[in-house]
Amino acid sequence: MRVQLLLLMALLCIPFLARPEDGSQLWLRFSKLGKAIHGVDILGIKSADPTVALAKQELLDYWKGAAITLQIDVKQKQLKDGYQINQNEKKIQVVASRPIGLLYAAYHLLRLQETGGQLSSSKIIEIPSYDIRVLNHWDNLDGTIERGYAGHSLWHWAELPKKLSPRYEQYARANASIGINATVLNNVNASAQVLDAGYLAKVKALADVFRKYGIKVYLSVNFSSPKILGGLPDSDPLRKDVQRWWKAKAKEIYTLIPDFGGFLVKANSEGQPGPQDYGRTHADGANMLADALKPYGGMVFWRAFVYHPTKDDRAKQAYQEFVPLDGKFRDNVIVQIKNGPIDFQPREPFNPLFGAMPHTAKMLEFQLTQEYLGFSNHLVYLAPLFREVLDSDTFAHGEGSTIAKMTASSGNLHRETAIAAVANIGQDSNWTGHHFAQANWYAFGRLAWNNTLSSAQIAGEWIGLTFSREEAFVDPVKQIMLNSREAAVDYMMPLGLHHLFAFDHHYGPEPWGDIPGGRPDWMPWYYHNADSLGIGFDRSIYGSNAVAQYNPPLDKRYGVRANCPENLLLWFHHVPWDYRMKSGKTLWTALCYHYDQGVQKVREFQKVWDRMEKHIDPYRFKSVQSKLRMQARDAVWWKDACLQYFQLFSGQPIPYELERPIHDLEELKRIKLPMGHHN
Amino acid sequence: MRVQLLLLMALLCIPFLARPEDGSQLWLRFSKLGKAIHGVDILGIKSADPTVALAKQELLDYWKGAAITLQIDVKQKQLKDGYQINQNEKKIQVVASRPIGLLYAAYHLLRLQETGGQLSSSKIIEIPSYDIRVLNHWDNLDGTIERGYAGHSLWHWAELPKKLSPRYEQYARANASIGINATVLNNVNASAQVLDAGYLAKVKALADVFRKYGIKVYLSVNFSSPKILGGLPDSDPLRKDVQRWWKAKAKEIYTLIPDFGGFLVKANSEGQPGPQDYGRTHADGANMLADALKPYGGMVFWRAFVYHPTKDDRAKQAYQEFVPLDGKFRDNVIVQIKNGPIDFQPREPFNPLFGAMPHTAKMLEFQLTQEYLGFSNHLVYLAPLFREVLDSDTFAHGEGSTIAKMTASSGNLHRETAIAAVANIGQDSNWTGHHFAQANWYAFGRLAWNNTLSSAQIAGEWIGLTFSREEAFVDPVKQIMLNSREAAVDYMMPLGLHHLFAFDHHYGPEPWGDIPGGRPDWMPWYYHNADSLGIGFDRSIYGSNAVAQYNPPLDKRYGVRANCPENLLLWFHHVPWDYRMKSGKTLWTALCYHYDQGVQKVREFQKVWDRMEKHIDPYRFKSVQSKLRMQARDAVWWKDACLQYFQLFSGQPIPYELERPIHDLEELKRIKLPMGHHN
Repeated sequence: MRVQLLLLMALLCIPFLARPEDGSQLWLRFSKLGKAIHGVDILGIKSADPTVALAKQELLDYWKGAAITLQIDVKQKQLKDGYQINQNEKKIQVVASRPIGLLYAAYHLLRLQETGGQLSSSKIIEIPSYDIRVLNHWDNLDGTIERGYAGHSLWHWAELPKKLSPRYEQYARANASIGINATVLNNVNASAQVLDAGYLAKVKALADVFRKYGIKVYLSVNFSSPKILGGLPDSDPLRKDVQRWWKAKAKEIYTLIPDFGGFLVKANSEGQPGPQDYGRTHADGANMLADALKPYGGMVFWRAFVYHPTKDDRAKQAYQEFVPLDGKFRDNVIVQIKNGPIDFQPREPFNPLFGAMPHTAKMLEFQLTQEYLGFSNHLVYLAPLFREVLDSDTFAHGEGSTIAKMTASSGNLHRETAIAAVANIGQDSNWTGHHFAQANWYAFGRLAWNNTLSSAQIAGEWIGLTFSREEAFVDPVKQIMLNSREAAVDYMMPLGLHHLFAFDHHYGPEPWGDIPGGRPDWMPWYYHNADSLGIGFDRSIYGSNAVAQYNPPLDKRYGVRANCPENLLLWFHHVPWDYRMKSGKTLWTALCYHYDQGVQKVREFQKVWDRMEKHIDPYRFKSVQSKLRMQARDAVWWKDACLQYFQLFSGQPIPYELERPIHDLEELKRIKLPMGHHN
Repeated sequence: MRVQLLLLMALLCIPFLARPEDGSQLWLRFSKLGKAIHGVDILGIKSADPTVALAKQELLDYWKGAAITLQIDVKQKQLKDGYQINQNEKKIQVVASRPIGLLYAAYHLLRLQETGGQLSSSKIIEIPSYDIRVLNHWDNLDGTIERGYAGHSLWHWAELPKKLSPRYEQYARANASIGINATVLNNVNASAQVLDAGYLAKVKALADVFRKYGIKVYLSVNFSSPKILGGLPDSDPLRKDVQRWWKAKAKEIYTLIPDFGGFLVKANSEGQPGPQDYGRTHADGANMLADALKPYGGMVFWRAFVYHPTKDDRAKQAYQEFVPLDGKFRDNVIVQIKNGPIDFQPREPFNPLFGAMPHTAKMLEFQLTQEYLGFSNHLVYLAPLFREVLDSDTFAHGEGSTIAKMTASSGNLHRETAIAAVANIGQDSNWTGHHFAQANWYAFGRLAWNNTLSSAQIAGEWIGLTFSREEAFVDPVKQIMLNSREAAVDYMMPLGLHHLFAFDHHYGPEPWGDIPGGRPDWMPWYYHNADSLGIGFDRSIYGSNAVAQYNPPLDKRYGVRANCPENLLLWFHHVPWDYRMKSGKTLWTALCYHYDQGVQKVREFQKVWDRMEKHIDPYRFKSVQSKLRMQARDAVWWKDACLQYFQLFSGQPIPYELERPIHDLEELKRIKLPMGHHN
């Protein structure tokens, strides 16, 4: 008995000995079986289909449960990429209408196995919420990544197409395991060069790796490509030669990559070229590209993230530009809209475009890379942010018109639907810099698959797969994750404050930020408007009236100060320092308490994490511990900077019962981090 | 009525308007009367005596009470530098046996006036505890100050003797106001040059300024001066030509400065030359100098701070070298002994020499400049440390043989007595860098005058004089001061730990410090001896047996672990990590709690201080606030560094209920401050 126990312990140690836990395995830490336990039968399709073969192999390698039959039933079109799993007695039957459905089902089964979940006796049916589940890589062709905090680009352009890094396939497998089926390889601030023949050959090589994992490749394109690459006099979308150029380019691409996904376009925004350069509309531009891709089934994702330095509120501009174009876009165009009207802030109200443009296909764009949330130094689990956005009610068709419903397949039966997120992936051995940032990649995939999952459920799955199934570990760590986003909001910009970030790199606080002659809408003061009377951006009817872009009753709910949710108060109102909050505290006092709470929460995360040491491997334990320490320091930095700066306007003391600042404002102002926004 | 009130308020504001509160006035913030309120009569001496004239002028300028008579009565020798104050009806009579007594009495009266104290109807008699109350300046001739943290040297050697900075007189007045009557102008690591004719002319110029304030000038001398300056073959104290050289030099000095005080000597210590270079003893060296000075009434302060890199415990060496010399020193030699056996650590047991050498005059050396207490960045009020030392019972003549009694005049009727402190003064406008470091200068002066005063009483006086008499200010700020030294001990090196400082500059923690090939007794590991079993320096009979240098019953009290005061436990013992403390905590847990407490205490100081804003001027408020912030950061630095480093040996977690570290040990190890130990 004792010998057996020792043997068991020795066996349990092997994974640690064999492969140090550096996070490179992500949530796919299955231990390979020496020998398959059961056979896997395939019905309805030749097993030579590489995706089906892959599904079978994954199960042979890792599945410890009952014998499985994988079956394709092309008639079950309603399943889309999904699957049905039936269990009777000692046999499991998986049915899908497409090969990829079987692969997804295989990962479903392995996920259940690894998290200790039970296969219920009744059948499981899974149909994805969105047809296209996309990662947007902001990777540049020189290997840098805009807003990348996990090393350089995964794509070794110089080595492609000849040399294929083993990480390409690991990347594809990780995405397939959570249902992601599309990847935009390059930055939306796009180089035209990606469309030249040399780069297309490289793109094809990646597409060839990704294909059996059900992942289609997309490219961000530079709207001026016809001029830059094709030598045309300009890139006016209504010019025949421009249109011809794009059609020829589409043909060239599809000859190489028959299942190429399509284009993502950032046009007429932050200096990028676009149709407006020629007096044309976004619809003119998008439709021309759509027409070129249409014969091959390609899509255009046209971004609505547009703003110019005008006198009007930046938060209103996307709506102003796009709403007049409603109904004018081709079927294979989807307008890609960031979740909030400004730019991936710790908290924003939802973008009002989601409640508008009834005749236009719209998709959400989230940001996984933590541009505004402490880079890969801060633990911020984003599912609660995603959930908050998905659950936001646009009232577009009366109560219950949540963004989840407005964008998902169920609400768009005749159109392709999609959801996107800016990736947080790089060459770091753990892929995402912070071990917990893997959870954001995971959560996006899971929500793109099923936009009704709860943040807690996803966190529970991910922790179990990534670290440990022990309750004593899962429960407290899940609490850290679930509280982490609100903690960040508290220590960075609570109560609806936004864009108090240091210029350009966006790490750390700079509420005093000002560059004489610079664009006002890139300056923190533009957003916080702190003065001796109060703080906040008046977007009510007395201010910019951005509230009018929301459907009733939201216009009044947001627009009337007393009704406005307090967590968005300063987004919509300029509020006096002595304004009485629901708690009875004044605004100033409440602000101080929020910042302090943010710090205390991070310190609490540290306490919880430090107790977890015995549950997991030392490498990842220490790495996370170290980053939490940095986060605790940064939280105090944020608090000290913002409170002391705003105090210059409020003229009131930080409540004396709160922990005091440990930095001087002047000293904080002198901090200039040597960071660009490419890694 | 109202107009009068307004006028009064306006008048009260004038000092603020006229002179911003930069701390330059120290505790002498009397507001000058437009016109003297009462006359001051002088009896028993010509008013032409400059010290008496000064006493009179100070009273005419600032005294608001009853009329005063100043009287010299040379028969009242028992008063020494002291005085008697009698008050009857509306008249105050001051009697002293020397002119300086009248000046001290004037400052006594003004102190009472400014702190709101009452002149009791019965007479006041004040007689100083020590005859010579000395500041030691560690100022170099190039203007730097060894261990100086308040700017460069006050002495502008290049400009002297022609140009006299107004600060020379301010310095003398400040010292006189607290009874200091001696100043050693230059560093104990002395340049011989200070004795050449050019420098002596400069020294004379300073002595001439200081004289009417009752302050005598002393010099630190280089024992090799006869060789260096006089061109002699060596400086052997038994050589006639060397003796002659010193006699001639003494004559030269006294011709210029008839009231020159004498010499301070650091010999055969840390590389300084001394009599041992020629096989002679400290007594040989000191006596030769004493003989040269004797005709003029000069003194020799001979330092006992000696140690060499031997195998034996550094803490034992001064005792080993000096005790055999007991009774061999001339009458005008006083052995100057640092308060502890190592070197001005946050807490040390008293130096056992104080309980030995019954036939030798001994004086205390304290350190005001915060070499080991956070420089001029940390608020550490040193009176409790001084009190702890003065109250330490040496048991030299049975119980009650406190260091206060052993060193003060009352215990040494036939000898000159003295007490010294290393100054914390520099060119900074507030003199001491930290506004609260002024309190240490003040406290030393007051204790040198009256070594029975309590830390609280001195703090109360100083706060009232320096900042405000408002109770709402005095009481909480006094609490900060009284707790500040124990806070520093807690966050730096509690439980008897010592010398964990960064190499050379001594700011910040470096318990891991090691320089291969360096002197062991300059390395932190020499002192903490942390290993897997425990931590601490075994000075019991099983270890270095330093405890044997203490008189019974202290040898057993310190030497038996169970009896040892816990605040000195690791000074005297190497203690297992799981040793049970009186609180029931293990040693490791107790250590963690002490470090944490240190941090929490500083944060509490911040809370208290921030509430004080309305009571004082903004300049000093902010300056102290800013330094407390730095102290709070440094306290966490200390805690994180020491606990994480010692944790490598204890192998135990920091108790999870305590706030977690916010720095990684490896990152802290990389901190290299670009500091020397000259400012």
